[in-house]
Amino acid sequence: MQHAAPLAKLIDALRALPGVGPKTAQRMAFHLLQGGRGGARTLAEALGAGLESIHRCRRCRMLTDTELCSICSSTSRDAGLLCVVESPADVVAVEQSGSYRGRYFVLHGHLSPLDGIGPTEIGAREFEALLDSGEVREVILATNPTVEGEATAHFLGERAAERRIQASRIAHGVPIGGELEYVDGGTLAHAFAGRQAV
Amino acid sequence: MQHAAPLAKLIDALRALPGVGPKTAQRMAFHLLQGGRGGARTLAEALGAGLESIHRCRRCRMLTDTELCSICSSTSRDAGLLCVVESPADVVAVEQSGSYRGRYFVLHGHLSPLDGIGPTEIGAREFEALLDSGEVREVILATNPTVEGEATAHFLGERAAERRIQASRIAHGVPIGGELEYVDGGTLAHAFAGRQAV
Repeated sequence: MQHAAPLAKLIDALRALPGVGPKTAQRMAFHLLQGGRGGARTLAEALGAGLESIHRCRRCRMLTDTELCSICSSTSRDAGLLCVVESPADVVAVEQSGSYRGRYFVLHGHLSPLDGIGPTEIGAREFEALLDSGEVREVILATNPTVEGEATAHFLGERAAERRIQASRIAHGVPIGGELEYVDGGTLAHAFAGRQAV
Repeated sequence: MQHAAPLAKLIDALRALPGVGPKTAQRMAFHLLQGGRGGARTLAEALGAGLESIHRCRRCRMLTDTELCSICSSTSRDAGLLCVVESPADVVAVEQSGSYRGRYFVLHGHLSPLDGIGPTEIGAREFEALLDSGEVREVILATNPTVEGEATAHFLGERAAERRIQASRIAHGVPIGGELEYVDGGTLAHAFAGRQAV
C-alpha cells in the first residue's frame, strides 16, 4: 500500500541507520508517530544538537564537542602510547576493557582503494604529524583483523618504522572464555603462529 | 568512558526506537555523526515533518497526512466490510496479502487494564459510531492471537452483536508452507478445533 508522503519519507530516512531494513524502518516510524511522539521530538532535537556540536577531536579524531576530546586533554594518560583504531566504537570498547592508559588515533575506516578510501581519508597526514611531534614512543595497531584492517596496519606500521618509532599489532587468537572446538580455522592458525613460551 | 554530552543525549534519544539497546544506539549515533551526516539531517527533517503532518485518519485511525486516509477515501473499497487490527503495521500486512478490499479500524493497541488501556484508548466509541452509521455489514476481528488480542476481539464482537451486525474472527491454524512438526501446540489445537469439511 501507498504510505502518506511524509510517512514514506520518514521510513526512508530511518533506513539510513545501520542495520535497519524496510520492515524495521516502518516499525520504527509507526512507533515514533504513535505513542512515542515525545521520543520523536527528543530524537529530532538530539540529532540537530549533535550535528551542530559534535565534531572530530583536533588531535585524535575521536568524536567530541570540545576542541580536544576528554582523553587527549586528560593529564593522567600516557602520551607516549598511541593506539590506532578504525572507529569511535573501538575506542569505547578498549576503554571499557580498562587495560589501556595511552591515547588513541581514530581512522574512521580502513584503506579500501576500491571504495575511494586512501591515506588522506584515514588521516595518514595527521597520524604522521603526531609521530613527528616527538611525543609518541610506541604505536599499537588495533585495526580489525580483516584483509583491509591488516593492510591499513601494515601501511601505518611502515610510517612508524620510517621514523624509528616502535609499532606493534594487538594479538589475535582464541578469545578468553571461548572453546577451541568452536573457534574458526583462521583464528586458530593465528593462535598457533602467535604462541608464546610459558 | 564518558561520552560528550550531546553525543550521550543522542544515544539516549535513539534508544526510544523499538528494539534498540545501548550498543545499537551507540553504533547508530556514531554512524550518523561520521560519514552519514547527510542522512542525519534528512532524518531530523523527516521526523519534524512527520510529527507535524502525520495524524490519525478521522474514520479508521490509520496514520495519514490527510483528513481521511487513502483507503477510507477510496471509492473502490467495500464500505460494508470493517477489519479491526491492533496497529498500522497490521494494515500494511493485510494490504500486502492483496486479499481484502474492505476498510479498516486501527485500535493502536489492545485492551490491557493493568497498563491503563481501556475501551477509550482503543477507540471503542469511534468504533461504535462507525457501526451505528449503518454502512458496516460485517466486522472482521483481526487482532493478534494473544490473550489480550482475544479479549479485545471478544469485547468488540459483543459491541457488534448488540447491533445485530455480523462479527467474525480470522482463522488461526498451521501457516501455509509451515511444517506440522514445527508448529507449536496452541496453534495445532486451534487448527484442529477450526477444521473444515472437504
